[in-house]
Amino acid sequence: MDRKRIIDVAAGREKADVVIKNTTVVDVLGGSLIKGDVAVCGDKFAGVGSYSGVTEIDGTGRYVMPSFYDAHLHFESVMVRPSEYLKISVPKGVTAYNADPHEIANVCGEKGIRFMLDDVRGIPADIRFMMPSCVPAAPEDHSGCVLGAADVKRIADSCGLFGLGEMMNFPGVVGCDPDVLAKLDVRPVIDGHAPGVSGNPLNAYIAAGVSTDHECESVEEALEKVSKGMYVLIREGSQTRNLRTLIKAVNKTNLRRFLFCTDDRNIEDLVGLGTIGNAVRLAVECGMDPIDAITIASLNANEAYGIKNTGAVAPGWTADFLVCADITAQRVEKVFYHGALVAENGQPLFSVSPADVSGVTGTVHIKPVTAKDMTFPFDPARPVMRVFPGTVVTEAVKADGPEGLNLMCCIERHDASGDIGHCYVDGFRLRGGAVAQTVGHDSHNITVLGDNPEDMALAVNSLGSDGGLVVVKNGRLIGKLPLEIAGLMSSAPASEALAAREKLTEALAEMDYNRDIEPFMLLSFLTLIVIPDVKLNHKGLFSVSKWDYLYRG
Amino acid sequence: MDRKRIIDVAAGREKADVVIKNTTVVDVLGGSLIKGDVAVCGDKFAGVGSYSGVTEIDGTGRYVMPSFYDAHLHFESVMVRPSEYLKISVPKGVTAYNADPHEIANVCGEKGIRFMLDDVRGIPADIRFMMPSCVPAAPEDHSGCVLGAADVKRIADSCGLFGLGEMMNFPGVVGCDPDVLAKLDVRPVIDGHAPGVSGNPLNAYIAAGVSTDHECESVEEALEKVSKGMYVLIREGSQTRNLRTLIKAVNKTNLRRFLFCTDDRNIEDLVGLGTIGNAVRLAVECGMDPIDAITIASLNANEAYGIKNTGAVAPGWTADFLVCADITAQRVEKVFYHGALVAENGQPLFSVSPADVSGVTGTVHIKPVTAKDMTFPFDPARPVMRVFPGTVVTEAVKADGPEGLNLMCCIERHDASGDIGHCYVDGFRLRGGAVAQTVGHDSHNITVLGDNPEDMALAVNSLGSDGGLVVVKNGRLIGKLPLEIAGLMSSAPASEALAAREKLTEALAEMDYNRDIEPFMLLSFLTLIVIPDVKLNHKGLFSVSKWDYLYRG
Repeated sequence: MDRKRIIDVAAGREKADVVIKNTTVVDVLGGSLIKGDVAVCGDKFAGVGSYSGVTEIDGTGRYVMPSFYDAHLHFESVMVRPSEYLKISVPKGVTAYNADPHEIANVCGEKGIRFMLDDVRGIPADIRFMMPSCVPAAPEDHSGCVLGAADVKRIADSCGLFGLGEMMNFPGVVGCDPDVLAKLDVRPVIDGHAPGVSGNPLNAYIAAGVSTDHECESVEEALEKVSKGMYVLIREGSQTRNLRTLIKAVNKTNLRRFLFCTDDRNIEDLVGLGTIGNAVRLAVECGMDPIDAITIASLNANEAYGIKNTGAVAPGWTADFLVCADITAQRVEKVFYHGALVAENGQPLFSVSPADVSGVTGTVHIKPVTAKDMTFPFDPARPVMRVFPGTVVTEAVKADGPEGLNLMCCIERHDASGDIGHCYVDGFRLRGGAVAQTVGHDSHNITVLGDNPEDMALAVNSLGSDGGLVVVKNGRLIGKLPLEIAGLMSSAPASEALAAREKLTEALAEMDYNRDIEPFMLLSFLTLIVIPDVKLNHKGLFSVSKWDYLYRG
Repeated sequence: MDRKRIIDVAAGREKADVVIKNTTVVDVLGGSLIKGDVAVCGDKFAGVGSYSGVTEIDGTGRYVMPSFYDAHLHFESVMVRPSEYLKISVPKGVTAYNADPHEIANVCGEKGIRFMLDDVRGIPADIRFMMPSCVPAAPEDHSGCVLGAADVKRIADSCGLFGLGEMMNFPGVVGCDPDVLAKLDVRPVIDGHAPGVSGNPLNAYIAAGVSTDHECESVEEALEKVSKGMYVLIREGSQTRNLRTLIKAVNKTNLRRFLFCTDDRNIEDLVGLGTIGNAVRLAVECGMDPIDAITIASLNANEAYGIKNTGAVAPGWTADFLVCADITAQRVEKVFYHGALVAENGQPLFSVSPADVSGVTGTVHIKPVTAKDMTFPFDPARPVMRVFPGTVVTEAVKADGPEGLNLMCCIERHDASGDIGHCYVDGFRLRGGAVAQTVGHDSHNITVLGDNPEDMALAVNSLGSDGGLVVVKNGRLIGKLPLEIAGLMSSAPASEALAAREKLTEALAEMDYNRDIEPFMLLSFLTLIVIPDVKLNHKGLFSVSKWDYLYRG
């Protein structure tokens, strides 16, 4: 830092580089609105007061506030590459991200992580990549690679990763699995993932060094986790929307222990609603003071992750800020990162250098499937998976017969082992076809769901070696979104991917299914055996609470 | 950290080392009271829940809370060595200190700092010594040594000091004095000292990297400093008592930006009232929620200084805590530091190893003074220093004659230069004698005040080569507190020093003076030319606001 220059500018002896004149500052430190000129010197604020600058921007009627921090997300969820994601999200005011490249790591390992790092290089935002801690999410899974503690350490060190990504293997932590504990040694910052864990097991999980959680489902759960020292990330994803519930846990006293995150957002929501700005708006709709909501979105996350002097408009603090037409940041007019204007009126002012995809394509390796592979005798003794709108939590239920149910299969796709798990699902109500995809948390095997084996087999075989999402109706492929990058992300620009996705949505619209759910997003979580309560993997139906298969097959 | 063991304990599979059973936890993270057993494993909390331990302590009717942090103090002010200070303050619940050995550094330089470090070695508390940044406080002063930027860096590095102590030279910071700026490079943690500074100059001071302030005198000043990114230390010293004013600046929104400190406490207050626990009690008396007050006293300071996972009772957090009979910590029954019981019922359970004093005694070097040296013709054109109860801020006033005033002299005592500054003082109303002392912030020259030159000369000459505080009445030395260590601290045990101090107070009681002031404490600040508005040094009367002498002589 050129200390002399910023002092000269702050003292008013020298012109600032940029001044937002006559504006209203959202003061997240004091909880107030302050009128004045915001002076920027290099990458820092010089101060709020009366200033002139080389560049002066009229801030009349505008709000200047710290830019936002998405405390936990997987870029992969939006199904475009991270550089495309950031071209959309930075202009919406989010300049800091804790990104866990967990999905691509499950398919491509270190090569996938390096692809993500390469893809965002030079983009004006703080992108803190976390080291995926659970690849695969659980030893029962079959993913594209297995990263043990030694791998985790090697990759985190050689890639310079910020922290350890969500430690989903809470039984491994609480049970002192040696490999899991060795992973915890890799970084002091350890994100958590402990849905429904409480009491002494939660104490054990936190005492192990885990400091955040983004899986709270209730006010009670959030309050317990806060009192026990966790930062609670209020998640507003696309499939999992916890904000309206969890915001009730926040009060003026515990406010500093809450952050916002998206975890998983689809491209429609990213483009249509945005991410953290959307959380701010929703929080205010729920009755929160806008300054408090912005504090959660900015200062709190920086504090939680030990990022000094960032997340507020104050002298010497990093000049990451927004100029907005409204106090809830719905109309973000300008985005500054480290003192430089990087986006204006929703458009990025920066260019990106997309990374070479050749190392992360062609990742789907299966033996072609037949309709016979997609059949499974119904047995009323076997539990059925019940799904619900608005959550990825499921239940095991009993059913008398297969009527009204769908069959779902999980096909191992990394090593062409031929392993296929089967179960019946209640709640999709899909009729006359099938959907299939290579996105299936966290091992990203192929998930296919349908009401007849022929359409299901066609759907799977239509995925190709690159993978994607497909819709089959009555024996005909009617929609496909190719996801060349690891079978998870499109290599096309976001606009093209969005158009392709919209076409897919149109195809989906031709299908007969339960309109309260988003089939592809929900399907992608029905193989995730660290989220309660029953999930399907390539071996069979797994109970998370019992941590065992309900049946294999 | 033995991660496996703490997990086993937290999970309840293994006995904790210590459990406080059936107690009430003051939860500063969630802002609530929680009933349960507090389990300790090694130096950390395993959790609050249902636990059994090797040692079990009944916590029924008791409150368990994080121990306290004094965010800024000078041990020297209490006039006993730091090990004696800590034997009193640790049992009162303060286990963390940011101590600036600024006073002894002004007398003895690096040797003095090392004495302080040596004296506290092995004491069970986090004693973070700051590197004195302003020795002398201003270039106009004559102290025992001059520490330039190179010295500051060398000493801070070789002594492993935590941060840069209060940067009092705000004109030097705001004016970009190269040596001052070079000092700011020494440590990222920089404590401030900017009484009354606001607006653009305050922006400049903060932009330079200063992150705290303990000199606020008004709510408005505190709020401006908080909004500009400072942590505001609410000071409740012995002479400067800002709590009742500043506590009004604290609300639920900005609470996290406030800390408590004592800065300067005398031994009577240390023993009688305590320090940070006293601030908690006063804050509650002023209407603050006890949990909020304890949050300021514990969590906030740890956050402000980047001390991770300390300052709350939560799994994996450092087990520095108190067992109290009341929620405002007035009856501290047990003090635990890093999981070990270190004090009980007001008594330390630890021993100390006082450092050798031989290098820091015999520090008073003056030419013997005569009554003639202690005379100064009254000139109505020269301003008079007006002092007030309860503050060390002074004013320059006019007076028609010397009636009702006292003469004060500041005698350089490090190099026997013979320099003596003189001024008249309004507000002491001392009659028939003199007081003199070698404690005089920050250069610790001799300050003497009286109503006749003979008594003043006797007082000065009675200080001896070791220095101390003396009282002379009508030609007779009636009280003396020897302060062998740098002329600032007694080398006697605290109980003896307190007894000697009480004798001195008795001697003082024989004197006729304004009873609303504490003469020795106030006198010790009347030479501090970084506190407004007029102060006396060895050269003459200095205006802090004009940053120049009003006259020399």
